[in-house]
Amino acid sequence: MKFQVECQIGYEVLQPSTLIFNIHALRTHNQIVLEETLDIDPHVRIDEFTARHSPNRFVRMEVNEHLFFTISYKAIAETVYQEIAHQDLINVPVGQLDGDIIPFLFPSRYCQSDKLQRLAYKKFGDIEGTYAKVLAITEWIYNNIEYVSGSTTSQTSAFDTITERSGVCRDFAHLGIALCRALSIPARYFTGYAYKLYPADFHACFEAYIGGHWIIFDATQLAPLNGLVKIANGRDAADAAVASIFGNVICNYVQVNCQTLDDNFVPFFPSSNPLKGLSLQ
Amino acid sequence: MKFQVECQIGYEVLQPSTLIFNIHALRTHNQIVLEETLDIDPHVRIDEFTARHSPNRFVRMEVNEHLFFTISYKAIAETVYQEIAHQDLINVPVGQLDGDIIPFLFPSRYCQSDKLQRLAYKKFGDIEGTYAKVLAITEWIYNNIEYVSGSTTSQTSAFDTITERSGVCRDFAHLGIALCRALSIPARYFTGYAYKLYPADFHACFEAYIGGHWIIFDATQLAPLNGLVKIANGRDAADAAVASIFGNVICNYVQVNCQTLDDNFVPFFPSSNPLKGLSLQ
Amino acid sequence: MKFQVECQIGYEVLQPSTLIFNIHALRTHNQIVLEETLDIDPHVRIDEFTARHSPNRFVRMEVNEHLFFTISYKAIAETVYQEIAHQDLINVPVGQLDGDIIPFLFPSRYCQSDKLQRLAYKKFGDIEGTYAKVLAITEWIYNNIEYVSGSTTSQTSAFDTITERSGVCRDFAHLGIALCRALSIPARYFTGYAYKLYPADFHACFEAYIGGHWIIFDATQLAPLNGLVKIANGRDAADAAVASIFGNVICNYVQVNCQTLDDNFVPFFPSSNPLKGLSLQ
Amino acid sequence: MKFQVECQIGYEVLQPSTLIFNIHALRTHNQIVLEETLDIDPHVRIDEFTARHSPNRFVRMEVNEHLFFTISYKAIAETVYQEIAHQDLINVPVGQLDGDIIPFLFPSRYCQSDKLQRLAYKKFGDIEGTYAKVLAITEWIYNNIEYVSGSTTSQTSAFDTITERSGVCRDFAHLGIALCRALSIPARYFTGYAYKLYPADFHACFEAYIGGHWIIFDATQLAPLNGLVKIANGRDAADAAVASIFGNVICNYVQVNCQTLDDNFVPFFPSSNPLKGLSLQ
Repeated sequence: MKFQVECQIGYEVLQPSTLIFNIHALRTHNQIVLEETLDIDPHVRIDEFTARHSPNRFVRMEVNEHLFFTISYKAIAETVYQEIAHQDLINVPVGQLDGDIIPFLFPSRYCQSDKLQRLAYKKFGDIEGTYAKVLAITEWIYNNIEYVSGSTTSQTSAFDTITERSGVCRDFAHLGIALCRALSIPARYFTGYAYKLYPADFHACFEAYIGGHWIIFDATQLAPLNGLVKIANGRDAADAAVASIFGNVICNYVQVNCQTLDDNFVPFFPSSNPLKGLSLQ
Repeated sequence: MKFQVECQIGYEVLQPSTLIFNIHALRTHNQIVLEETLDIDPHVRIDEFTARHSPNRFVRMEVNEHLFFTISYKAIAETVYQEIAHQDLINVPVGQLDGDIIPFLFPSRYCQSDKLQRLAYKKFGDIEGTYAKVLAITEWIYNNIEYVSGSTTSQTSAFDTITERSGVCRDFAHLGIALCRALSIPARYFTGYAYKLYPADFHACFEAYIGGHWIIFDATQLAPLNGLVKIANGRDAADAAVASIFGNVICNYVQVNCQTLDDNFVPFFPSSNPLKGLSLQ
Repeated sequence: MKFQVECQIGYEVLQPSTLIFNIHALRTHNQIVLEETLDIDPHVRIDEFTARHSPNRFVRMEVNEHLFFTISYKAIAETVYQEIAHQDLINVPVGQLDGDIIPFLFPSRYCQSDKLQRLAYKKFGDIEGTYAKVLAITEWIYNNIEYVSGSTTSQTSAFDTITERSGVCRDFAHLGIALCRALSIPARYFTGYAYKLYPADFHACFEAYIGGHWIIFDATQLAPLNGLVKIANGRDAADAAVASIFGNVICNYVQVNCQTLDDNFVPFFPSSNPLKGLSLQ
Repeated sequence: MKFQVECQIGYEVLQPSTLIFNIHALRTHNQIVLEETLDIDPHVRIDEFTARHSPNRFVRMEVNEHLFFTISYKAIAETVYQEIAHQDLINVPVGQLDGDIIPFLFPSRYCQSDKLQRLAYKKFGDIEGTYAKVLAITEWIYNNIEYVSGSTTSQTSAFDTITERSGVCRDFAHLGIALCRALSIPARYFTGYAYKLYPADFHACFEAYIGGHWIIFDATQLAPLNGLVKIANGRDAADAAVASIFGNVICNYVQVNCQTLDDNFVPFFPSSNPLKGLSLQ
């Protein structure tokens, strides 16, 4: 499936600052970036990089003067979602996890799984099957946390959300991740462009490691899973933020768009087909 | 300098559990493991591994029955500490950091640097020089946080410690890391064996990235920096724990020992020599 | 019903300290103290007082030297529990509450009802009837929070317990109070001696204001409600602690006992008789 | 000194709600209300009350329909501030405090003094004299916490503010109270109208109990202490809120004004006269 994605973000830099953006569509075997352009207006020199252990694509810029600027990204990406049948969505015990997966079992800044263990076991521990457990977590979040724009801040974490019961996609994802990890299921944060997300914005959801695949889950149910174009994975929003700012910068606006270029898009929601999971690695 | 290190930890496994240990001395260019043995008594099959992006050495075991067991590790390691002169301990701006260093700028489970920014800038922002800033952070922690065995738990974080003002080496390290990151200085957790640490135990301190080197700091001032044998680095104790337990296991005792095999050990404390920093990468 | 209650608490005073105890059985219309003795061994001068707005009975002592001492209290109290029939346990709207009751609607140190509103409304808001709501809260706590001795500290609050899902009687009471207040039902802390509590100790539970009465609830279900001898009411453990210590004092042991002096004690648990509530004012 | 105070607050009631206001100038020996009027537009029946143990004056109204309304209060109050000379501002040991003062030693919802003890002793414990201690607390807050409108919410507490280092008058007061109580100095919340406060608004500060008087302190230094007209005292903002709302109500605007009717107002700030304290009981 081909998607055209774009974003435009406007900033005012008040003092010398470094900005790191993570808005490029990820390049993987199953997500091919066919075309892309990045514009900074007015022009500022940028530096593109990835880290050795992660394919996330970063753009960094230093701005040393007062400046209004706009960063615009536009791409056409082709995604090939893998469908994993229910019978293959089996648990991988901690004893057999690859060393690279294990860090996604540990608590992180916004996903304090260590504090959620009793709650997670009580609520979801008896559900048979790892995939069913994570689906149940996702449904529970959807039914119990209210999606309220602006109700949380960049410091809100899963430990807050489980009690305060409101949040945005970021908070829904953090809570899903924390509950999975509390049950010894590896889970990681997923940011991306999302087709049919309303209102249009960057989206966040999560992946759980089941049957050897990173399966996508979205507790907000706001967008079909097969309409996602992945930007990044991370432990949580701390290392997969759309923009990390070191300095004094104001964000003035964000515009995001994601359209399909194909006609035959059939939206996939796990609730309507619990017999298979989707993966986009 | 050669050190002989050893530890012995006793557990009771109550229910089927997986345990992951991180007690091996790290193998790096500057820390050569000359000999080592690992024993599990009674014998349990283990699996040794590292993750692709980190040299930390893990041992994993699954225990599916009620069992008392002891894990014992013994090694001789030779460390070559690099001494970095004061004039080389210069700041690396965020705009020039390598992509692999950047994650150590972000907040993590126990180091909520995002919540400490105003405090860190107010207290340390005006100090000239990155190395001097981190030394000042270390001194401040030493002077203001009381070392009280047993005063904290595995859930205690830098956000707690900055106010509650007591903790153990783990808490001192977390707070140092959080304050560095709040000032845009990359910092990471360091666990190891420590010569002259009293009472003997595993030790935790931290490294800050200055002048292109990971410089060691120890806010507890409990052991000379050049008597450390490194076990692991991580974002914080979440991914560099001595033991991560998935299941139901009780730890009955821990014995740790670290001796030098050379005669000419001259303890190094940064307070007595602020003109150079030590690195052990 | 007559009860004989007693407690003996041993302390070591390390530095000049003031201690305030709240261990006397309350004197009210419905709880008559027939006999009582208080002993401090060795003798220390004490000062007994109450505050103008509360009948709680305090004993205060200043100790200005290193001292081991024991405080012992023994009393015979007669309690007359009021039974309030189900049809009288009706809601008193906030608009009609007496001014003295209103503070028990507000959040307090250990009962952060302001953070629990969405959760409380989601879980209990649709239950018909105030008494049924509070019974449901009590049952939910009983079923979802694990009673684990030593799992919490004097700083643990309802906001922690709702997520961490373990605690002792104090934590169960704080959570019950917080959930009631979140639903605009006045609730207060209750400490007392408890017949048939095992292991014997001071007990804490809570009262909710329904139908013009303070009705007793105990989410631990560890002791029959009609076996309680009230010591104090308060907003939470902050102002109804058994002992408040200003200084440096170690508590060495606590012994508590509560026996009935009548033969015909019929234990009352609200689960077995939801058609009436008990009050002891 | 005579002051004319007034406020006007506009609300939209979305669902049946009860509102409790605490905007009347307090009537005490030293604060005489010479004239006052209260208007609700459109007219809604109200109920005025106080609680037995506190002179705070409340107005309560029930609104059972969708309604926009304005509440307006206007008064002329004469205040007689007591000046307490430095030599009389002596410590009252806990052992001699009146029973009614003792609750102001305990932690409360927004003033978690139990968590701040080591910090408070370390920073202020060695300062000679209780009045000097509280002045030092006030100065420290003024110098270390940034006054940033909108930086905090109604859930922000002293435990947050001590680390996050920003807030408004409410947060400054809560932190001052928490630090005093951590040092066993009784302290309470004070709300009022404030002459020369800019921008005009309700104001919050605190009182500490020294030498048998409740002495006023204001860590914001935004208004002279002798320009305050007291509305209420409480443990913290939980029981001295300007408006407590039970239901679903939006506040649309707040206008507050405070003018002196005398010519000879000489502003008093404790920093310029540390030899006496002011009290308004």
